[in-house]
Amino acid sequence: MFNFKIIKKDGATGARTGRLKTPHGIVHTPCFMPVATLGTVKTLSSEDLVEMKAEMLISNAYHLYLKPGMEIMEKAVGIHGFMNWERPVVTDSGGFQIFSLENVRVEKDGVWFRSRIDGSSHFITPESSMDIQNRIGADIIMAFDYCPRRWDDFTEVKNSVDITVEWARRCAGYHKKRSQWLFGILQGGIYKDLRAFCVERMEELDFPGFGFGGLSIGEPFEGTSSTVDLMVEKLPEKKVRYFMGLGMPLQLLEMVEKGVDLFDCGMPTHIARTGSTITWRGKVNIKAGRYKEDFSPLDEDCDCFVCRKYTKAYIRHLINTNEILGMRLNSYHNIYFTLRFMESVRKSIKEGEFKKFSKNFKKKYNIGK
Amino acid sequence: MFNFKIIKKDGATGARTGRLKTPHGIVHTPCFMPVATLGTVKTLSSEDLVEMKAEMLISNAYHLYLKPGMEIMEKAVGIHGFMNWERPVVTDSGGFQIFSLENVRVEKDGVWFRSRIDGSSHFITPESSMDIQNRIGADIIMAFDYCPRRWDDFTEVKNSVDITVEWARRCAGYHKKRSQWLFGILQGGIYKDLRAFCVERMEELDFPGFGFGGLSIGEPFEGTSSTVDLMVEKLPEKKVRYFMGLGMPLQLLEMVEKGVDLFDCGMPTHIARTGSTITWRGKVNIKAGRYKEDFSPLDEDCDCFVCRKYTKAYIRHLINTNEILGMRLNSYHNIYFTLRFMESVRKSIKEGEFKKFSKNFKKKYNIGK
Repeated sequence: MFNFKIIKKDGATGARTGRLKTPHGIVHTPCFMPVATLGTVKTLSSEDLVEMKAEMLISNAYHLYLKPGMEIMEKAVGIHGFMNWERPVVTDSGGFQIFSLENVRVEKDGVWFRSRIDGSSHFITPESSMDIQNRIGADIIMAFDYCPRRWDDFTEVKNSVDITVEWARRCAGYHKKRSQWLFGILQGGIYKDLRAFCVERMEELDFPGFGFGGLSIGEPFEGTSSTVDLMVEKLPEKKVRYFMGLGMPLQLLEMVEKGVDLFDCGMPTHIARTGSTITWRGKVNIKAGRYKEDFSPLDEDCDCFVCRKYTKAYIRHLINTNEILGMRLNSYHNIYFTLRFMESVRKSIKEGEFKKFSKNFKKKYNIGK
Repeated sequence: MFNFKIIKKDGATGARTGRLKTPHGIVHTPCFMPVATLGTVKTLSSEDLVEMKAEMLISNAYHLYLKPGMEIMEKAVGIHGFMNWERPVVTDSGGFQIFSLENVRVEKDGVWFRSRIDGSSHFITPESSMDIQNRIGADIIMAFDYCPRRWDDFTEVKNSVDITVEWARRCAGYHKKRSQWLFGILQGGIYKDLRAFCVERMEELDFPGFGFGGLSIGEPFEGTSSTVDLMVEKLPEKKVRYFMGLGMPLQLLEMVEKGVDLFDCGMPTHIARTGSTITWRGKVNIKAGRYKEDFSPLDEDCDCFVCRKYTKAYIRHLINTNEILGMRLNSYHNIYFTLRFMESVRKSIKEGEFKKFSKNFKKKYNIGK
């Protein structure tokens, strides 16, 4: 039902391209997953996502648990039926979201938190997280982890590793649904010993893939970078490597080069709604006055329907007048761009040209426009 | 370049179906025009509108004048180029919008108002309104009228008729662009004498069509109804009759029956964004708890992509969590519904079955679901 096969490894770097088989289809890696937190990639329909060849989405168990709730999810025949999306889906367990709330109380068994919707109290354990994710029915589900609030508090990070490892053990023991692959999530901040310890303990649980958690939360980039190196080095080659919460082009290039296979990020749609456009020549603030009378497309090098049909001047006008269509067209382009970018990355690895592609991309991207 | 041809008249009522030829194509009447105030039918793309076979849109000169402004409109080659819409467009002059502002000062020559965007002062005259609409480049443009604030203030309504007639005369004298048809706007509230006087004076100016203005602003419906009867009776048959600002199904039926040809209304998209769905079985509040686990389409009798692909439970969830996709899908359906409804109206007139269609529609629509 599942497998992950590396098709080609880059000679000069750690980059690799592969095929991840899931019950809902094949995913080509390295893959960027658009974020559908509440069962929608904000502003976009499932038809849009099929049209732009998105291969896998990520949704969020914590958010779906609160709304619409598990009964509805189950009656809708899971996330695929609910949002009319027939391709692969990942759910994040929601540890990251829960630990970013106020008034969270961690116990050995699980975590107490209050709903941001109605203030009601909820207790999530590793087992209940598996139940929730089983009912949502994503192809790949994530172990319930403890994400530290601060990357630079050693005691807190150490504690998070101990709890995360223990909870992962319970998730692995509890999860029985063979139509869902369970990935572990690695913590340890940028403390090498903690990270290494976490990888070793988690590896014993034999997860088929690992989320790189607790990164990109404010730590210095050299720390992120060397921590990813460490994880990649310690993990068996055949395991899927998933950097959680990263999605801007230069970051993606950096992590692909180290050998990361999966990415997700809400940024491309988030910044789209406030007027930032990602293009092959860099990030552009479409609200700027200089685009007032610019009747060229958002991105001269893009062939998405937005770039074929509409102008910067029009989309700027829509964003500036708070029109939903502006947010929608800009979101479409940003996701389309990111997917085409990853397609080019995969092609370059397959052709043994990743280094060259990366260099050329950066050169053009940094020039801006 | 323009003509309006009545194809078939209903034997039993005043209903009629016709073809309105414009430089951007044929419009079949009776026609409902989706409202694109700022150059977008809220949440929908031009591709969506082509897909659902919208034939003509209405935009607003006053709003476009403030944003994006006339220089940009002109450089974009008008509203068609700006919003990538190749079919017919009407612009309302914006009289209605201006007179609904605070601090409006009317002079013989025109009207002073303050921009709601930056507080700047603007003076619009009948001539400048023509200039603005010439630059926007719609197929049909509207004379600059004075819309009374209250329907039940005789002096105010009388004054509005006098000014509207005088300004219409100036618009007709000033407008020279042969690629744009200029329609007059009739005022007079529900005061029969004033309305009759207005029709007579405006008819002398030989407009090819007339907007029915100053109605549907709070007056009792019997008044609206008899006022439309009066206007229809007094106007030559060959003139286009356009009821401004009406678009719910039962209202449309009523006015089609009297012989009205054109309609516009922001309501279908406005109510869509807060969760009201128009269906063949009546208006539905999709946020209601009863639809929580309802996995049927918004409208069982609709074949739009939203109804083919998504469920009430999903769209309810999106609307309740304030997701833009919910507003978008519901807007798509409501406009699609209204266009298909008008298509059926036209067909029934052509087949001499309007009365029967109307009766059957009302029966089903009032049952609800």
